[in-house]
Amino acid sequence: MLTEQGCRQRRQNLWSVLPDTVEQALIGDSRHVQYFCGFRTNPISFSADQAAMLLLSRDGHAVLFCDNFTRRSAVGEVFVSEEIIQPWYDHQHSVTNRHLSLSSALSTYPRTIDPSALLVERDGLSVELTSVIPNSLTSISVGSTSSSLGTVIRRLRRTKQPDELSLIQNCMNAGAAGQAAAFNAVVPGATELDVYISVQAAAQQTAGCPCIVYGDFRATNADVFRAGGLPTEHRLKTGDMMILDFSVVIAGYRSDFTNTVAVGIPTSEQASQAEACIAALTAGESKLVAGTGCASVFETVDAQLVQRGFPGLSHHAGHGLGLEHPEAPILVPHSTDNLLPGDVVTLEPGLYIKGVGGMRFEHNYVITDSGCERLSRHDLGLQPG
Amino acid sequence: MLTEQGCRQRRQNLWSVLPDTVEQALIGDSRHVQYFCGFRTNPISFSADQAAMLLLSRDGHAVLFCDNFTRRSAVGEVFVSEEIIQPWYDHQHSVTNRHLSLSSALSTYPRTIDPSALLVERDGLSVELTSVIPNSLTSISVGSTSSSLGTVIRRLRRTKQPDELSLIQNCMNAGAAGQAAAFNAVVPGATELDVYISVQAAAQQTAGCPCIVYGDFRATNADVFRAGGLPTEHRLKTGDMMILDFSVVIAGYRSDFTNTVAVGIPTSEQASQAEACIAALTAGESKLVAGTGCASVFETVDAQLVQRGFPGLSHHAGHGLGLEHPEAPILVPHSTDNLLPGDVVTLEPGLYIKGVGGMRFEHNYVITDSGCERLSRHDLGLQPG
Repeated sequence: MLTEQGCRQRRQNLWSVLPDTVEQALIGDSRHVQYFCGFRTNPISFSADQAAMLLLSRDGHAVLFCDNFTRRSAVGEVFVSEEIIQPWYDHQHSVTNRHLSLSSALSTYPRTIDPSALLVERDGLSVELTSVIPNSLTSISVGSTSSSLGTVIRRLRRTKQPDELSLIQNCMNAGAAGQAAAFNAVVPGATELDVYISVQAAAQQTAGCPCIVYGDFRATNADVFRAGGLPTEHRLKTGDMMILDFSVVIAGYRSDFTNTVAVGIPTSEQASQAEACIAALTAGESKLVAGTGCASVFETVDAQLVQRGFPGLSHHAGHGLGLEHPEAPILVPHSTDNLLPGDVVTLEPGLYIKGVGGMRFEHNYVITDSGCERLSRHDLGLQPG
Repeated sequence: MLTEQGCRQRRQNLWSVLPDTVEQALIGDSRHVQYFCGFRTNPISFSADQAAMLLLSRDGHAVLFCDNFTRRSAVGEVFVSEEIIQPWYDHQHSVTNRHLSLSSALSTYPRTIDPSALLVERDGLSVELTSVIPNSLTSISVGSTSSSLGTVIRRLRRTKQPDELSLIQNCMNAGAAGQAAAFNAVVPGATELDVYISVQAAAQQTAGCPCIVYGDFRATNADVFRAGGLPTEHRLKTGDMMILDFSVVIAGYRSDFTNTVAVGIPTSEQASQAEACIAALTAGESKLVAGTGCASVFETVDAQLVQRGFPGLSHHAGHGLGLEHPEAPILVPHSTDNLLPGDVVTLEPGLYIKGVGGMRFEHNYVITDSGCERLSRHDLGLQPG
């Protein structure tokens, strides 16, 4: 889980990029509230659709606003100076519109907020709040461009702190258990949904708690060589290849890695296609170091496929990962991003060929000044090694 | 899933309660976008945190706004006149702040929006949109009070349409499979998480798709007689009672019913406590008919426990259920709600007694003019019947 030290560091990082004219920042995107104080509504709860709000001050003061039931659904510990909890439901009286709780909570806040020194995360807060907060700063200058607060925070998010990496590693471990389970679950006659349920069970047992498991759990084959999305009740048959490209989400953070498992013994064409994808992944890995242009990582992965006589990539070579997916940096031909230390990225070469089938292989990495560290530790390959 | 006919009916119902001065309504709460057009972002997807927006016109025109990847994560079919899809990611270029997609989409909308006849769901739309939409109506008069759009829609939501009831019934069927699985999974040595995983697997197999399963999956006993929340790695032992109070969410709608399963043979005290809860449930059921005051349903359930020498209810007797949980009507002593035809409600008497343990039993119902129909069909009781 996120730590107090990590939350404090992230707030300091925010204040270090905001201009001196800003004294307070009001944050509403649920990912960003979590990023700075640890509070996030558990999506596996009846409060899933409810948000909280965070008021940060340059002097270090931090205030969490939410309703009393949303507060109970926190995914982890909360690190703030004070909490303004709006009573929404008390087991005694009828309920009112729960979405009005945040503006009610803010209106009871006893300290003065100077609107001329307040920066509001406009894309993460509801219009309703404008009745409580008068006109306030809406964009700031960082470098040569005027950026919204949400955009500034997204930039900071690229550099993962130790507590974030630790949480992401928990997701990786759970995901690896899911991939291992898939080798046993992918058998003729099983449905894609059966495989999903086995993967989900193994991931949750490793995580030690319920988690969201989302992604592509689909069979391809010589005819249906491209498929994505959640599992269906399609029954696997010999010759199919099951793409398992999934994320395990724990407390908002996630892994995202892929393996493809053959149903029965793969054909030689399927085997050489897999070999090419894995070679492309390895080639991409050699380029992962802070300072590299993301477009050049794409080119390296793509070229490896083409050199082996296959078509180039039909999608990105990979992308950033963390509280969102995909997030910057994006490994695509026209990317303007360069890799930064602390970026967590995926590499996921895939080939989808009529008459053979579709497959994809993927690992996750954290970028360092001298190279990268691989975070995902599952076995790659159409059959267990 | 929601149907075109159902969505059209719900829009008509909205227009019938909005004053003639309102010509257009801009809706942003994800539950309400779904309610009127079927679109909802699947929470089991990488777009889970992204929203869509719906512009309804009195003449029947409906426009969905969202980004291109959010659109792909729809839980079901979408019923609108047109879609304004903002390109956010194309596998070729870097990504920008995805939360700005909605205001970008709205700013490209080619038709004229008259702000003086536009009603905005202020608690469901972001401040960012105010740069695109000028001042617009914010509250309307319905009867003697001025209500926000979100509040008006919540009132309409109480009367479930046939397509909503059909979707809720799918949740009920999946939940019943989960409860049946729990009778086998609750054994000494199993963890609460093991039981959760068995319940989740059975529910998803019955639903035919991945679902969110949330609720209380906790063991109680003579010492720990009150516990709630998601499962832990606590291992069940003889004498424990496992409370299974959970919802299965399919496409935003949900069931919410409970059983309590004894680990081993229940004691006579546990058995008579269960008998009292189930008698209270039956008593409450006899009061479920349109027009009854919710407070009087509470009193009936509560009195049944007290008459049998137990303490009264320490929480509500039940609550409304649908796109939210709890939602109106609320079955509590100071409720101002009366039951309406089309309300979907729970009844959930529970007792938590030191030296014995905690338990709860719950069914779900739809209210009719002549009584109610029970929607949940699981077996109640500490042991399989």
